[in-house]
Amino acid sequence: MTKPQLARLPGSLPDTIPFIGPEAIERRLGRPFRARLGANESGFGPSPRVIAAMAEAAAESWKYGDPENHDLRVAIAAHAGVAPDEVVAGEGVDALLGLAARLYIEPGDPVVTSVGGYPTFDFHVAGFGGRQVKVPYVADREDLQGLAKAAQREEARLVYLANPDNPMGTWWSAADVEAFIDALPQETMLILDEAYGELAPAGTLPPIHPLRPNVLRMRTFSKAYGMAGVRVGYVIGDKGAVAPFNRIRNHFAISRMGQAGAMAALADEAWLASVVARTAAARQRIYAIVAANGFEAIPSATNFVAIDCRQDGAYALAVLEGLADRGVFVRKPAAPGLDRCIRVSVGPDEALDIFAAELPEAVAAAERLTAKRA
Amino acid sequence: MTKPQLARLPGSLPDTIPFIGPEAIERRLGRPFRARLGANESGFGPSPRVIAAMAEAAAESWKYGDPENHDLRVAIAAHAGVAPDEVVAGEGVDALLGLAARLYIEPGDPVVTSVGGYPTFDFHVAGFGGRQVKVPYVADREDLQGLAKAAQREEARLVYLANPDNPMGTWWSAADVEAFIDALPQETMLILDEAYGELAPAGTLPPIHPLRPNVLRMRTFSKAYGMAGVRVGYVIGDKGAVAPFNRIRNHFAISRMGQAGAMAALADEAWLASVVARTAAARQRIYAIVAANGFEAIPSATNFVAIDCRQDGAYALAVLEGLADRGVFVRKPAAPGLDRCIRVSVGPDEALDIFAAELPEAVAAAERLTAKRA
Repeated sequence: MTKPQLARLPGSLPDTIPFIGPEAIERRLGRPFRARLGANESGFGPSPRVIAAMAEAAAESWKYGDPENHDLRVAIAAHAGVAPDEVVAGEGVDALLGLAARLYIEPGDPVVTSVGGYPTFDFHVAGFGGRQVKVPYVADREDLQGLAKAAQREEARLVYLANPDNPMGTWWSAADVEAFIDALPQETMLILDEAYGELAPAGTLPPIHPLRPNVLRMRTFSKAYGMAGVRVGYVIGDKGAVAPFNRIRNHFAISRMGQAGAMAALADEAWLASVVARTAAARQRIYAIVAANGFEAIPSATNFVAIDCRQDGAYALAVLEGLADRGVFVRKPAAPGLDRCIRVSVGPDEALDIFAAELPEAVAAAERLTAKRA
Repeated sequence: MTKPQLARLPGSLPDTIPFIGPEAIERRLGRPFRARLGANESGFGPSPRVIAAMAEAAAESWKYGDPENHDLRVAIAAHAGVAPDEVVAGEGVDALLGLAARLYIEPGDPVVTSVGGYPTFDFHVAGFGGRQVKVPYVADREDLQGLAKAAQREEARLVYLANPDNPMGTWWSAADVEAFIDALPQETMLILDEAYGELAPAGTLPPIHPLRPNVLRMRTFSKAYGMAGVRVGYVIGDKGAVAPFNRIRNHFAISRMGQAGAMAALADEAWLASVVARTAAARQRIYAIVAANGFEAIPSATNFVAIDCRQDGAYALAVLEGLADRGVFVRKPAAPGLDRCIRVSVGPDEALDIFAAELPEAVAAAERLTAKRA
């Protein structure tokens, strides 16, 4: 029997998805994780004021949220020191990356990213038919020179840089990023993913001004603000770069609770400061746990630490699986070279206690497995 | 100075947006509406259990929601009598319509809808370059025969039908809809928007089985369940039609609060029944208010009533503006023929009291305006 056919591009896409959620692993294992340290969520949670604002907004959820996200954009603009029409808010950076891909990519257009960069960006690039040009990391950092050269050589429509980086946690200084921007063709749009920006050392984020016509800076309430499950992110860019999002975005996509929560989050600077401090302390604690187990932590400017397990990808995977067997959810990079690492998110002491207790067992299990294979 | 250029298709799109939110009108008028009866929201609100579930989930919002929406899909599937892999959940029907457009439309492909049908569907069709083929309403109903003929003639990729219909509130019987489906080319995918389905008389929704390979049935928690501001909708379809959504959807898009709230909503059947009853009573009350003002209500199977103001579009617009001036938010169809109507959502007595009190004044103002113009 005949049936409707997909359009060519979606018809050609694989069924792969960017991430397996921890819930899927829990369903497979038949038990919940005891420590959820794999998705770079903030176990410190959202501010109590955010929780209260969202609980209050829950009762008003019979109303659609303002499709212009007006009050939220005004608050973000004040926070960032830009004008409201230099901000577009959306249902998380994932959604905004998809919109940016759709705005700029025609099938076959070159898009420059790093080997092992953010899988969801790759998902969207593939989804709109972009031709992915990938530059390897150098010394566990995204290669600014290599990315710029590739962008020039390919006359790339888009180039993607996360600063600080995910999955390695490394970062470049504001000056380095600005030099990188200067080295890009003016026709190339840079997606500068600053999802972890609030957690980075001073001097990591370039100044907001001047806004450049070829840079979209993406930020989120999912990381430092502890609101991953709420779905609010935003783009800062010059007015001309931001306005086209309105032609294609899902105007009613941010929930009313999300609008209220994000505004409450911006207003509670003390909570953000406390999360930044606790994140820094938790990174130090992870460094110590890692050293005690003979591994090497890669210094991080984020809410996670990439841990060099000092062997190959199979070994690091065995450590990850050993942790999962013991109730600890972590993730790992898959790209060659980076795959020697596992990636562990920061969290409150109780979660890191479990990680500290189980890591030696997971390492021992990985050693046994490796010995058996040899 | 050179700058990045948009891809051709988004570069060709207008800056128009599907809907102006009531908040934008409030900002312009400088005061809040006293009665919010324009967006087909449910002033009866979500179930108290939904509010409680979302408030509880707020504290867990540091975690991403399950990207597979597994538990929610299982609950929806049980509710609808299908299998979980015959359901895809998303961040509202608006998002799901966008995904369907992306899956099926290539630039220039014909898409059949009604003149004056859902603007957000048109927005997405335009956004993916579809060629819109529009069929006028007949006697204030979508024209099933006309839609089927156009789909056949054009070999349409997609055809859109809302049953019950928005903006007119009219509906077709299940048997009529099934005959319509039988009349469509098998290569044409029907998007059957049943957003108001829970509120329609028995015998309006076709049986779920057999699932047909060329029908996507879209449903929402925004209307009868009173959760417009939460952003959860879903598609029921056969497995082969549902699976491709996973290739392009925003996997983490539904908030954790939304997942919890939607499951609580499905579990509270008594609340749904009470909303259905109160909606029916409120429709009757609107009919009476309308008759008392010399207008004519179009019988509705939804949570709104299209009111025939018995003159032209300019007059109906004047009534709408008179209501807005008096603190009452309503909307109106813009399409020729339908534009003689205003569209008023049901709501609790307090809101309808305000509508009843202000409508005569708004009518008088519209009469004065019309007399001045004549």
